[in-house]
Amino acid sequence: MRNFTSVADVTDINALVNEALELKKNPFAYSQLGKQKTLGLIFLNPSLRTRLSSQKAATNLGMEAIVMNIDKEGWALETRDGVIMNGTTVEHIREAAGVMGQYFDVLGIRSFPGLQNRDEDYSEDILQKFIQFAKIPVVSLESGTRHPLQSLADLITITEHKIKARPKVVLTWAPHVKALPQAVPNSFAEWMSQADVDFVITHPKGYELAEEFTTGATITHNQEEALENADFIYVKNWSAFHDYGKILSTDAAWLLTNDRLKTTNQAKVMHCLPVRRDLELSAEILDGPNSLVIPEAANRVFAAQVVLKKILEANF
Amino acid sequence: MRNFTSVADVTDINALVNEALELKKNPFAYSQLGKQKTLGLIFLNPSLRTRLSSQKAATNLGMEAIVMNIDKEGWALETRDGVIMNGTTVEHIREAAGVMGQYFDVLGIRSFPGLQNRDEDYSEDILQKFIQFAKIPVVSLESGTRHPLQSLADLITITEHKIKARPKVVLTWAPHVKALPQAVPNSFAEWMSQADVDFVITHPKGYELAEEFTTGATITHNQEEALENADFIYVKNWSAFHDYGKILSTDAAWLLTNDRLKTTNQAKVMHCLPVRRDLELSAEILDGPNSLVIPEAANRVFAAQVVLKKILEANF
Amino acid sequence: MRNFTSVADVTDINALVNEALELKKNPFAYSQLGKQKTLGLIFLNPSLRTRLSSQKAATNLGMEAIVMNIDKEGWALETRDGVIMNGTTVEHIREAAGVMGQYFDVLGIRSFPGLQNRDEDYSEDILQKFIQFAKIPVVSLESGTRHPLQSLADLITITEHKIKARPKVVLTWAPHVKALPQAVPNSFAEWMSQADVDFVITHPKGYELAEEFTTGATITHNQEEALENADFIYVKNWSAFHDYGKILSTDAAWLLTNDRLKTTNQAKVMHCLPVRRDLELSAEILDGPNSLVIPEAANRVFAAQVVLKKILEANF
Repeated sequence: MRNFTSVADVTDINALVNEALELKKNPFAYSQLGKQKTLGLIFLNPSLRTRLSSQKAATNLGMEAIVMNIDKEGWALETRDGVIMNGTTVEHIREAAGVMGQYFDVLGIRSFPGLQNRDEDYSEDILQKFIQFAKIPVVSLESGTRHPLQSLADLITITEHKIKARPKVVLTWAPHVKALPQAVPNSFAEWMSQADVDFVITHPKGYELAEEFTTGATITHNQEEALENADFIYVKNWSAFHDYGKILSTDAAWLLTNDRLKTTNQAKVMHCLPVRRDLELSAEILDGPNSLVIPEAANRVFAAQVVLKKILEANF
Repeated sequence: MRNFTSVADVTDINALVNEALELKKNPFAYSQLGKQKTLGLIFLNPSLRTRLSSQKAATNLGMEAIVMNIDKEGWALETRDGVIMNGTTVEHIREAAGVMGQYFDVLGIRSFPGLQNRDEDYSEDILQKFIQFAKIPVVSLESGTRHPLQSLADLITITEHKIKARPKVVLTWAPHVKALPQAVPNSFAEWMSQADVDFVITHPKGYELAEEFTTGATITHNQEEALENADFIYVKNWSAFHDYGKILSTDAAWLLTNDRLKTTNQAKVMHCLPVRRDLELSAEILDGPNSLVIPEAANRVFAAQVVLKKILEANF
Repeated sequence: MRNFTSVADVTDINALVNEALELKKNPFAYSQLGKQKTLGLIFLNPSLRTRLSSQKAATNLGMEAIVMNIDKEGWALETRDGVIMNGTTVEHIREAAGVMGQYFDVLGIRSFPGLQNRDEDYSEDILQKFIQFAKIPVVSLESGTRHPLQSLADLITITEHKIKARPKVVLTWAPHVKALPQAVPNSFAEWMSQADVDFVITHPKGYELAEEFTTGATITHNQEEALENADFIYVKNWSAFHDYGKILSTDAAWLLTNDRLKTTNQAKVMHCLPVRRDLELSAEILDGPNSLVIPEAANRVFAAQVVLKKILEANF
């Protein structure tokens, strides 16, 4: 593996999941693999789970992790070419990424979409430029359109908790007060379409995700119907893709409650976190026996660790 | 030791101090004890000494320390139950702490009191919720009502510098321009009441600390009288407990100067730092031979180290 | 070596450069030298290269690096003596530095000049006080008047890329929209005056640097003339020294372009970064074969590493 930016970087997702589960049994089995290797973790946006789990994963492999919140500790980066930099951006991504490529062996980068210009966000301009100019293996810590470490952790979690060979997995939209990226649902859909699951997406009209991510999924606006016999429910808010970045609904009827679980197959409930209680997902579910959100977050370590292991093995 | 949040977590304070002094002689004697163990240091408020000394202590024990200023690098946490999270808080402490408990082996947490609502601050709601939801050993890096690592370092310092078996220790209030928490004086009083010292507290009327912390102490509003024959003077500002969070006095007559030391037993002067010179404590004392503030800060490393050692030994 | 704050701390710059180049061949040759030693990296101003390269250098030597952005994670420091601290500064540099001296073995400190008061900036008050009160070896990570780790990396880069024994090196002023310190050009001039190079400085009238740094250099206001037969061109903006901190020119005619390189000896172009493209330096040069800015930045690691090595060897 050279880079890890989407499911397309993985040759066999089931093998990757199984390798992650082996690492979970013995997290320090490869504690020499990353010796004298440095992982740069560069955040253009805030992070809790991604930062801590990546740092932990690197440490488990013997790597040195260097965290930099460049938005707070550094300065604004220019990403456009051909501009005279006489404004507020202090350094061009060409130099910033180029320099990081000299200091790090592997680069993790987080950059959220602006949600103003869809073409710009979906071009993955910033992520691609980091890859182009850093010239070292790059791991997405969430980009404009995807959050692949989250999706890998989600698949690890489903694999651990499934009680039938081919579970029914439902991605359901949930209300929120802020306009959030499509990265997590895009990515989750992309991974589920390759996993051994029956995959259903449900959301209000207008919240259709880009088709490139949802190929093969059953899509319905009827949440009740979608949830029937579900084994796993993945709850997530996102803003509209077609009417880009807009909030089209805040309908509390989409809030998942214990009552909604009745028609499911005692479904396990997942969320990537952070979650706003009783707005996105009911407290009663989060505090109840169906919630997987904490073990799901715990698996972020092993998702990051297996990806770093693959990159270390293939590139050094 | 499971948690370290107050003197009540310590079975024998003298034994703990002696063990810290042994570590000080040989800081790397247990550099294998913390291998493959991660200490999360989570700050909801700024820190210099606590952060650096805890990081150093962890490193001395072979632990990996991960520092996160969640107020700056992360987002605002909701602590109340039963609220629809449609405001400014992004994540609930139940999830945030729960996730940290998956990534760390030991959790250090700093959370200052708001000084608006005494019952809330003194309930130690945030600290207790981190303990409840993280489900791993928790070390207070200063909470609403106590700063036990500071108090342990203070007792180590007194033990090192005392020239009689039972010294007289005076805690004196000092002026300040800001309303400060009672955590340091509460904690100091609580530790001194169990130490082999004669303990006197002096402050202006209205600055009485909560009685649960001052049991056994002699309390007087007459600083001059209090300082007579003192061996150690602990200088600290705090805001009122009874008229909660209020500044009742800024009387510069309470500023400790060399002149005030004349009636003491060549008293050593302590302060937890940061200290505002010539407002809280005179520059002439800080720069003179009576000051212990730098060695006292140095002992923060060994206070943290002995606590982490005890936790590692008891829980892993 | 006790401290590293200017070229005056180095007994033989050529030997130091050669030792850095040896480290570059084998960065982990001294990975035991720094074991159980802690490097504090304290930033009063933002940093990318300096922070990352110092952290990497320390790690290569087996040191533990602790980074603290005290301007963001801590609080404002008072540097003046004799003031009653009843304003916005929370801690005096006497205590802050004194405490850091207890926690770290070596201290790196970055503090930019205010560009308001020349005497204050050029007194290097803050750097000197850190040295005085920390009482441990101190490495400048850029101070009011100098950036010696940058200059050492520059000399390493020139040494690597020169194709004649005594190359011609030209420092040229470049336009900028902000008033920048003189630290980098001061320091570069100071090092070049001791290096085996022909050194020329060119800038618009009024941008003369302080003479103490430029002794021995040829100084001209004619950039065209200066660039003739140049082997290396060092591009940098700075604000005026004599009319202190002022921007006297933003003349785009000073922007270095490929056309300007025609009369040079296929000159290599350097810049300390961050660089504002097409304002300070043309994109065509930065993206072309003459640019050395990325390898120059890469050498920051080995500049820091050789300095730390010298300090470790001399002091522990």
